[in-house]
Amino acid sequence: MLPQPIVEQLVAIVGESRLLLEADDLQRFGVDRTTLWQAAPCGVVLPGTVEEVQSIVRLANQYNLAVVPSGGRTGLSGGAVAKDGELVVALDRMNQVIEFNPVDRSVKVGAGMITGQLQQFAEEQGLFYPVDFASSGSSQIGGNIATNAGGIKVIKYGMTRNWVAGLKVVNGAGDLFELNKGLAKNNTGYDLRHLFIGSEGTLGLICEATIQLAATPLESSVMVLGIEYFSEIVDVLTCFSRDLDLSAFEFFSQQALDKVVAHRGHAVPFQTETAFYALLEFEHSSPDVVDKAMELFERCVDKGWVMDGVLSQSLSQAKNLWKLREDISETLWQWQPYKNDISVRISRMADFLGEVDQLVMEQYPDFEIIWYGHIGDGNLHLNILKPEVLSVDQFHSKCANVSSSIGQLLAKYEGSVSAEHGVGLLKKDYLHYSRSAVEMDMMRSIKRAFDPNHIMNPGKLFDC
Amino acid sequence: MLPQPIVEQLVAIVGESRLLLEADDLQRFGVDRTTLWQAAPCGVVLPGTVEEVQSIVRLANQYNLAVVPSGGRTGLSGGAVAKDGELVVALDRMNQVIEFNPVDRSVKVGAGMITGQLQQFAEEQGLFYPVDFASSGSSQIGGNIATNAGGIKVIKYGMTRNWVAGLKVVNGAGDLFELNKGLAKNNTGYDLRHLFIGSEGTLGLICEATIQLAATPLESSVMVLGIEYFSEIVDVLTCFSRDLDLSAFEFFSQQALDKVVAHRGHAVPFQTETAFYALLEFEHSSPDVVDKAMELFERCVDKGWVMDGVLSQSLSQAKNLWKLREDISETLWQWQPYKNDISVRISRMADFLGEVDQLVMEQYPDFEIIWYGHIGDGNLHLNILKPEVLSVDQFHSKCANVSSSIGQLLAKYEGSVSAEHGVGLLKKDYLHYSRSAVEMDMMRSIKRAFDPNHIMNPGKLFDC
Repeated sequence: MLPQPIVEQLVAIVGESRLLLEADDLQRFGVDRTTLWQAAPCGVVLPGTVEEVQSIVRLANQYNLAVVPSGGRTGLSGGAVAKDGELVVALDRMNQVIEFNPVDRSVKVGAGMITGQLQQFAEEQGLFYPVDFASSGSSQIGGNIATNAGGIKVIKYGMTRNWVAGLKVVNGAGDLFELNKGLAKNNTGYDLRHLFIGSEGTLGLICEATIQLAATPLESSVMVLGIEYFSEIVDVLTCFSRDLDLSAFEFFSQQALDKVVAHRGHAVPFQTETAFYALLEFEHSSPDVVDKAMELFERCVDKGWVMDGVLSQSLSQAKNLWKLREDISETLWQWQPYKNDISVRISRMADFLGEVDQLVMEQYPDFEIIWYGHIGDGNLHLNILKPEVLSVDQFHSKCANVSSSIGQLLAKYEGSVSAEHGVGLLKKDYLHYSRSAVEMDMMRSIKRAFDPNHIMNPGKLFDC
Repeated sequence: MLPQPIVEQLVAIVGESRLLLEADDLQRFGVDRTTLWQAAPCGVVLPGTVEEVQSIVRLANQYNLAVVPSGGRTGLSGGAVAKDGELVVALDRMNQVIEFNPVDRSVKVGAGMITGQLQQFAEEQGLFYPVDFASSGSSQIGGNIATNAGGIKVIKYGMTRNWVAGLKVVNGAGDLFELNKGLAKNNTGYDLRHLFIGSEGTLGLICEATIQLAATPLESSVMVLGIEYFSEIVDVLTCFSRDLDLSAFEFFSQQALDKVVAHRGHAVPFQTETAFYALLEFEHSSPDVVDKAMELFERCVDKGWVMDGVLSQSLSQAKNLWKLREDISETLWQWQPYKNDISVRISRMADFLGEVDQLVMEQYPDFEIIWYGHIGDGNLHLNILKPEVLSVDQFHSKCANVSSSIGQLLAKYEGSVSAEHGVGLLKKDYLHYSRSAVEMDMMRSIKRAFDPNHIMNPGKLFDC
């Protein structure tokens, strides 16, 4: 329960209709896409300006009230969960285009802008926002930045980090920072912008962002290839990426395909069934690029790596092939999956996967495992489906054990326990497998500097 | 003078021949390309391993000895100057390729590797290291990272920051950090790698770097265009960048061209003399790209922006045209220039330049000014040549006054007082024009966390 004096002061800042205290609002704004924690915020406040955000953070400092920043709440690691009486600060109303400049090819937007709307806006200007992923229809750009969102185009365009030319943030002390101001070159000391990118709301609230836009990509083609052995997916990737400028290289397992086909009614790409499928995309940078792709396809068939394949002959066929990959994540929600979002260097992936596969077979003999991911970035999504017979708690506790084993393997392979989903609540116990003790010390020092009273998203990323 | 106990312990760490105490060595290792400060280090030590670097930093902490990291000493802001009895730690011996991986397209190198050698190595592997600038033949990769070096390909390939996939650093406390380990995706909290990039040796010493390499670029063509008015260079840039994937867009003034032609014996690009020249480069991504470039050229001529132009017809002609731009910096050294390396957003450049031009005419009526720079990144190099009648000190003090006026203009235009050269000693008094008081506070807090005894490159970037 939010004490009355705080209620009154929040209402004075944002107006009565922008402070939500009803149970269903608390429930809705207190969770992300994870299902492991119960929402229990003390209130939800919806500021409309940067100044209102500053006032809210100063008030929170005064009352030592924990703040959870909230975007589209599509996160998969519990980073936006408010389970301990925190105040949720939702950026939904700060969703405008503030300034578009065609010469700079950049757009300044409020943090609450939906990712898909930014993509749409860029398209209307004859430009392109290249960060894309399954939840871009509801995720917000502020949350994308706070988690350095990745997705399906990283192999060519990089993570969200690459597209942030400026940030307006309010730190945990309520101070306003205008970072980098949209400049292409700015070597004036430590780049604090990059600290906020991926900080998961633990240093402050992202209020506005200046986003660099790219040129509209050329027309592209999509290929889906059937591959029997995991290690050969890496061979195929190496073969294709040497000679083609790939804009995506994804993979999924037969099990993933089965689920998507059964639940979404999509057609299979071809009749041959193989253990794995690679989906690759390339832009038509020159007229002979399709011939080159066919030549590489044949080379991979001759090597015995690829069993069958299809090349899109139209934009609509390309879109349909993409759905086989893009719809996996949403399809799996009904099984309340435990998601491992891990990465290693591409060159180590085949060995790493061999060991993970063995570990999973030993430790999850009864669980259904669905593999897919962004193999071109060394990023694997290992989804474990909850058996009906287990409660959420039982399931989570079993998965947590295996996560430790996977963490140990990741430490051995110098990999990451969170490639693109962030750490939040879900991964913080495994963070030490990827980050050393001295790194953790420095992260805590940085947290103290930006958030001296420790009110910003406490308990996320690490415990202080 | 380095006290005897420290000499003995340093010799025990690196061996006698790797501790330099002779006057000419102290002179050589105590300066960068600036000429404003006198070298006065207490010694120069040349470690050969990361462990030796750690031992040196721990020893320095014990004796409260200031440390200046030293790379190729090609810096232009005094970041590597040792003028107050510091110990110079030169990374020259740590210049090996440690590991190359063709699947990851990455190479791990010692921080002392010369930039040009890295470019060469990449080329030998059929790959490409895209960061390039006038001093790449002697600058070192560690120094490039510490200053986030830019150069002539930033418009397409970005700064050094974009190519650093991993860093091995020793912070000011002597702790070893292995940051990001070459991963493409790694969202596990604050990305400390990005803090070290551009930190100018104030947080620690960069020992090794994992560098991402790019695909070999396609063949490219170069155009030089004669343009009479500054604002129209921006019009030409906007016109070309909308329809062509530019890999460079540079400019220089008639005065710069005159100097290069006179001192290097290069041919002028064409007979028409104009106040400014734009040099642009584009890769042949499709066969009609040259036709497109010619069409854009004609459009710019029709608009009255471009007076004359030349398109390279061969690789050697392209190289010769590039020399007109690339040789400017070296040509100007004989005048001991005071270098302003500033940036604003491209869309604000024309207005900004109008004001700078007026300011410079008013405040430097007798000085010779040479303009050139990376206009495609909003980055201008304003070089003020020292008149023979003035001493270095007199000249510097006059220039410093004007720098304050330019700083005020930059603050108004939300620009940067150091686009790509870094802050070092030269710009620290002007840093507040680009970074706010709260940003400075956070930078100092971060400095304290990584360098608790304040031994790393003290007095550079800011005073603590």
